[in-house]
Amino acid sequence: MQNQAPVLIRVARREDGATILSMLAELAAWECAPHAPRLSPSTLESDVFGKNPKLHILVAENQSKQLVGFISYYENYSSWEGAVGIHIGDLWVSPACRGQSIGSDLLNHVASSHKEQRVDVFVIRNNEARFFYEHLGFKEQTQWILYRKESGCSSCRTL
Amino acid sequence: MQNQAPVLIRVARREDGATILSMLAELAAWECAPHAPRLSPSTLESDVFGKNPKLHILVAENQSKQLVGFISYYENYSSWEGAVGIHIGDLWVSPACRGQSIGSDLLNHVASSHKEQRVDVFVIRNNEARFFYEHLGFKEQTQWILYRKESGCSSCRTL
Repeated sequence: MQNQAPVLIRVARREDGATILSMLAELAAWECAPHAPRLSPSTLESDVFGKNPKLHILVAENQSKQLVGFISYYENYSSWEGAVGIHIGDLWVSPACRGQSIGSDLLNHVASSHKEQRVDVFVIRNNEARFFYEHLGFKEQTQWILYRKESGCSSCRTL
Repeated sequence: MQNQAPVLIRVARREDGATILSMLAELAAWECAPHAPRLSPSTLESDVFGKNPKLHILVAENQSKQLVGFISYYENYSSWEGAVGIHIGDLWVSPACRGQSIGSDLLNHVASSHKEQRVDVFVIRNNEARFFYEHLGFKEQTQWILYRKESGCSSCRTL
């Protein structure tokens, strides 16, 4: 692990939008996603920077004021717990800046701001990120399987 | 399948609270949950019936005005889609009233009210509910694994 100057973790601002979308595209490519992310400047404006955010984003800024990573999350809900929880959507650190604990700094910032809430994240089965989360105390929930029905009127008719 | 009078699917109201909690307890027992659900009259009031609901609940009411099932859901978010989605939290039909399509009526009501949004649900690995969701067009997302970090300050310290 390299010794580097600490990064600043802060809430994303409008002027970070283009860099966030660029990092999200890098994340999609890294994960060989079937399509580029559809989060756009307009959905960022409405869903992240709007009055009632649907998605929260924190960024990691280095001492040169460059963004080197981000984390996104939203609230979920558990009737079992009778409480809101946190679901991590995306976590990305620029490849050139890895090995400096920026990923865990971002995750730690979210968790320490939501101490009373449990934190969920989906991890791709063959992704080494699994070890990262396990190292930080996350446990695989082997009993739960995610099922999904894609959007669209035609598919709704069959429901 | 029995022929029965149709049920009314409607948004839950405060006066349904006790019956919803009773049905949720039945669901927990059915799934052999490790503890009783912690959703309570006070969290129902704040998180479901409050000004900014964290959890949405629809109920199925029969012609005798009895509640015979419910579904709960909340909004999630996908950066890939740049859009809000729906996550089904709980779905329950009283055992005596099964075989009348009440479960699919409840799910259909949520889906048809959110045609443009994809719908996710966690299903227990060995639960026959998997077939129910598959029949309705849901697909197992084999590539994603859920990881979870439980709440509490002590665990946050290790993040």
